[in-house]
Amino acid sequence: MDVLKWERVAAGVWKASIGKKELASMDYAGAPKLKALSDMGDTGFPFDRKATRGQVNASGANVRLPLEESEKIYGLGLEFQGINRRSNVYHLKVDHYGGVKGYTHAPVPFYVSSKGYGVFVSTARRPSFHVGIGNRKDSKLPPYVDRTTGGKKWSARPVSDSVEASVAGEGLEVYVFGGNSPLEAVRRYNLFCGGGALPPRWGLGFWHRMHTRSSDADVLKEVDEFEKRDFPLDVLGLEPGWQSFAYPCSFDWDKMRFPDPKRFLDQLSEKGIKVNLWENPYVAPTSTISEALKPYTGSHTVWLGEVPDYTLDGARKVLLDHHQKNHLDIGVSGYKFDEVDGYDVWLWPDHASFPSGHSAVQIRQLYGLMIQDMFMERFREMNRRTYGLVRSSNGAASPSGFVIYSDYYDHQGYVTALVNCSLAGVLWTPEIRSARSDEEWLRRFQSVCFSPLVQLNAWSSGKKPWSFPKVTDMVRDVIKLRTRLLPYIYTAFHDYNQKGIPPFRAMVLEAGFDHTEEIIAGKVHGEKNPYAETTRLETTDQYMMGPSILVAPVFAGQKSRKVVLPRGNWYDFYTGKPAGNGETITIRTKLEEIPLFVKDGGIVPMMPAVNNIDKAKGKIELEVRHYGQEQSTYLLYDDDGETFDYEKGINSTTELKVRRRAGRLTGSSSTSDNQWQSRYGDVSWNFMSQ
Amino acid sequence: MDVLKWERVAAGVWKASIGKKELASMDYAGAPKLKALSDMGDTGFPFDRKATRGQVNASGANVRLPLEESEKIYGLGLEFQGINRRSNVYHLKVDHYGGVKGYTHAPVPFYVSSKGYGVFVSTARRPSFHVGIGNRKDSKLPPYVDRTTGGKKWSARPVSDSVEASVAGEGLEVYVFGGNSPLEAVRRYNLFCGGGALPPRWGLGFWHRMHTRSSDADVLKEVDEFEKRDFPLDVLGLEPGWQSFAYPCSFDWDKMRFPDPKRFLDQLSEKGIKVNLWENPYVAPTSTISEALKPYTGSHTVWLGEVPDYTLDGARKVLLDHHQKNHLDIGVSGYKFDEVDGYDVWLWPDHASFPSGHSAVQIRQLYGLMIQDMFMERFREMNRRTYGLVRSSNGAASPSGFVIYSDYYDHQGYVTALVNCSLAGVLWTPEIRSARSDEEWLRRFQSVCFSPLVQLNAWSSGKKPWSFPKVTDMVRDVIKLRTRLLPYIYTAFHDYNQKGIPPFRAMVLEAGFDHTEEIIAGKVHGEKNPYAETTRLETTDQYMMGPSILVAPVFAGQKSRKVVLPRGNWYDFYTGKPAGNGETITIRTKLEEIPLFVKDGGIVPMMPAVNNIDKAKGKIELEVRHYGQEQSTYLLYDDDGETFDYEKGINSTTELKVRRRAGRLTGSSSTSDNQWQSRYGDVSWNFMSQ
Repeated sequence: MDVLKWERVAAGVWKASIGKKELASMDYAGAPKLKALSDMGDTGFPFDRKATRGQVNASGANVRLPLEESEKIYGLGLEFQGINRRSNVYHLKVDHYGGVKGYTHAPVPFYVSSKGYGVFVSTARRPSFHVGIGNRKDSKLPPYVDRTTGGKKWSARPVSDSVEASVAGEGLEVYVFGGNSPLEAVRRYNLFCGGGALPPRWGLGFWHRMHTRSSDADVLKEVDEFEKRDFPLDVLGLEPGWQSFAYPCSFDWDKMRFPDPKRFLDQLSEKGIKVNLWENPYVAPTSTISEALKPYTGSHTVWLGEVPDYTLDGARKVLLDHHQKNHLDIGVSGYKFDEVDGYDVWLWPDHASFPSGHSAVQIRQLYGLMIQDMFMERFREMNRRTYGLVRSSNGAASPSGFVIYSDYYDHQGYVTALVNCSLAGVLWTPEIRSARSDEEWLRRFQSVCFSPLVQLNAWSSGKKPWSFPKVTDMVRDVIKLRTRLLPYIYTAFHDYNQKGIPPFRAMVLEAGFDHTEEIIAGKVHGEKNPYAETTRLETTDQYMMGPSILVAPVFAGQKSRKVVLPRGNWYDFYTGKPAGNGETITIRTKLEEIPLFVKDGGIVPMMPAVNNIDKAKGKIELEVRHYGQEQSTYLLYDDDGETFDYEKGINSTTELKVRRRAGRLTGSSSTSDNQWQSRYGDVSWNFMSQ
Repeated sequence: MDVLKWERVAAGVWKASIGKKELASMDYAGAPKLKALSDMGDTGFPFDRKATRGQVNASGANVRLPLEESEKIYGLGLEFQGINRRSNVYHLKVDHYGGVKGYTHAPVPFYVSSKGYGVFVSTARRPSFHVGIGNRKDSKLPPYVDRTTGGKKWSARPVSDSVEASVAGEGLEVYVFGGNSPLEAVRRYNLFCGGGALPPRWGLGFWHRMHTRSSDADVLKEVDEFEKRDFPLDVLGLEPGWQSFAYPCSFDWDKMRFPDPKRFLDQLSEKGIKVNLWENPYVAPTSTISEALKPYTGSHTVWLGEVPDYTLDGARKVLLDHHQKNHLDIGVSGYKFDEVDGYDVWLWPDHASFPSGHSAVQIRQLYGLMIQDMFMERFREMNRRTYGLVRSSNGAASPSGFVIYSDYYDHQGYVTALVNCSLAGVLWTPEIRSARSDEEWLRRFQSVCFSPLVQLNAWSSGKKPWSFPKVTDMVRDVIKLRTRLLPYIYTAFHDYNQKGIPPFRAMVLEAGFDHTEEIIAGKVHGEKNPYAETTRLETTDQYMMGPSILVAPVFAGQKSRKVVLPRGNWYDFYTGKPAGNGETITIRTKLEEIPLFVKDGGIVPMMPAVNNIDKAKGKIELEVRHYGQEQSTYLLYDDDGETFDYEKGINSTTELKVRRRAGRLTGSSSTSDNQWQSRYGDVSWNFMSQ
């Protein structure tokens, strides 16, 4: 293997190329935020360069990077189990998740080391990662142990000194992101890809997806119900039935259900409600754009619909122009792009042909990414932010305003996915659809309210937030709590955009979190564990939201749960009382609460609960909470909430400061408007722990 | 895609090539049995040639064959679930089976249609099969159905008019085997690959694998116990501890446990007992052949042992010469080649390099096959038959005397694998290791006694056949029943060799079996089955053994079970009473019996139970059973049972005939010796149903 040549492409970011340049995910990145990277300061290249290798052989292109025995490796995409990828092999394939690691909606080939660096493999192929497993014969091998005499010393997975990644292709590119902590590496990755997505303000409100056969009248009736029952509503999602044909899709309005789409959209707009349209990309022959797209489609169909090759500009233009004219120009706010992942039995085969000449594998691995990219570009041209959903993604997607979801409905898996999305530069929603009990309904609602996109997806169940009467009030309470936290959450997303800090973060990205893993040594069992494989249990059922809040969701049936508190003092969000410091606590669960903890000095600006974000007019009063005893400063962010003007610095910042004077904590605020007048008004301070 | 050009390569066998010739499984086939194929008569090419297509594109090489809506497709390797592969995608990868279809020990790319033809894709790559799923845009598409209005008419898997297979490689070869029935297609496949394996006679007896840390004294003591307790024993298996180092392997005798291997082997040989040695191919540095093999090994190790590239003659010679000198020449009868399958976390990565230049994927996909091939060749040179085990295989393995096994210990899966092995040209053993109850112990013993290789694998559990005292007598009984059936089973294997008829056969290969499938229509469930996928339940818990016996094993806990009887009269093996005709019967299970049924006219020659096959001297008396009312003829086969001389026609055949004379059934026998004197003596007829 050849020693890799590294090129410094930004402060703290290096790149090496192996073989030929192929279609790759990094092709879709936004412009790197070079100044923000520079502001992070410089950091050294994290490897001995001579130990970094690459080659092209009969299998394709592969890379080898050194690994120390003590390193933990996190990431490799939107996984539903675990967080430490070490001692495992991952084959990263875009697919609907069905329990197989690596085969997931966003199998992002980016990993972060507990040492503090990150590595990204840019490709459109399906990369495989041997993460500290597998030993080259010419490497430093661990000691040999005779299995019949060596007892527990023999390991089925001998320690390896490397991470090796490979693609069955003609080349790949590797990016290395330096850092003194995993969070730094993640920040540099997000910033290099263009910064994280800043959704429109309304996108952080409540989303309700209607039953698929709903008509305009059904929708308006439902909206009335939300109002009557005092439930927040910001986005109304329409499922397949809004189209004249699906599946596959016509992309045209169904004349029976939506005879006057513009009027319908205007009626909702008056209430501040946005509309999001479901679609999948597979083209019905009855679609008005079917003929125009035919020259651009692949050899195979999906659900009998043709599959446009969206690496081709001509195809992009046909779809975008149609959607702009028929949807966006009349007021549609965004999309849910479904079924761009798998399974194999539905999507095109790996041997299908596409007119661009790219392989079917490449098209599939980047399909969700390229669809996001083309729409983000069009929205940007319209100077209008969007927020929507997509069922697959890949690397370099940090700036994309599309959130991933899945039919895999396991609640624990949903929370683990939320944890792992922060290590993949993607956003994820543990959307709620239905439940088998009141308790499960409420607990899922609590989780989704503490996630990037709060959505009830009733496409099939036809449920409403109030469908489980016993817990309706508690459901309403948590949704309203979510709306109250909007200033805090919106600011967190701005930090995602400007500093690359994920708004919802795995605990391993939090300073002071000593990653708790439980290692259960393997015992030989001839039938169940013949190779005495070890089990490793990791903490993936809690996460950070914004700078200060730790979220520890509860699953149905849990009477108590453990919470791992990082070093430093932590306080109960609801009461301000001390909860612990650098320890694992056990709490008794309360049905009406999702456990939340705030770090010492945490400042949480909250607004009054509103039932619609855009309709809230006039100055918004703030209750600004402070927790603990520490002095602190917090920069509350605001802008117009819907255009890209913020990129020109058109925004407003309110500095919230807490200082101790004569033994007492006091707060002050100071607003700085830059061509945008802050919507925030009077500030009431609430020192929760005093 | 181009229309394929077909070349007739034998009676009823055609071949087409796409792209370049690469390393392929058919390279390892034995010489085709052209005369036997000819004797089967001719049959037409089963497709419209113009509808058969192939191409090489950006993804590799792929082939398309037409498929009718009513066809069922069976096969595609040693699968542990189901038998009909239609409407599914299979990615065939040699791996340890762990619940994922396609990733299995013998993912043989051979399938059979209910119409009666077979298709084999010869490659060393991992072929993918779209079996009646996926629709090309330029093919005949089924009707479009709007999902929101079409109700049950909409299908997530629209009917497809083809089977498409593909490899990520530069070419592939396709073989088509004609036939009027699935059995004919399977026979032609087996015959074209060289005919099925004929094991040495002793191989069909009882195999006991010792605990891995056993010494020679331990073994001799165990053998004594078998004798004392009146338990048959033919082969003694030694597990890793017989080697001076493992893992990885030295291949040399451990001096402490086996200080005098030749003496040890002689002692066992006096009792007629053979020894089978466990190994995996990964070379320990302390092995006496480590240096000699080093020039031939791949870039990566497995359990720190180097991996020889056995496509290279030099490597083969080193291993074979060592094994002949140190094992075979002193009396070892065969091997168990372990861990040549997976998992990925243990074996070499797909991007490893090998000195031959073949890719790591190719080497892995054929590794088990090439190891079998090199040893079969050496045994043939020694004019000595072998029987052993191997944990992976591929196509063209029909002549190989190695039986597949797995750590996947699910009993139902084990029986399904036995059913499917007959469609893959491989042999499989549902070996017994341990059990959680007396009942399970007995039921597993019953299954394994009605399989190609009867083995208790106590490498870890240290169990003996008498370890569950409550059922010891019943265990002994079924093992002895197995030994009594040796003449019948041995003859069935000879039919495998000469006619390609698998000795243990899926019911779909039996004339008159109307393949029962239960289709459970999918119902939309937003969380559990959003695409309303259909479930298809197939019969895989019963099989044929030899020409006349139907085996319906019982699983622990089953108080009763259904048995599907093909058309014609069937009789209970134990009583001769009528059981049914072309129907599904429900039987109450008896602990002491494995349910067995015999077809009308079935002739079953049985010998007295013996505790060691090779030590049974003198003429063997036969009890020849006849079932039902039909006249019939059966050719009982015999030969020396241990050399390849039978290939020159050195054998003996005894014709057993049953005729009705004056209303009564009478039997006669007539022996024809050809340079071999039949070991069978007097015949007693037992008309079970009279």
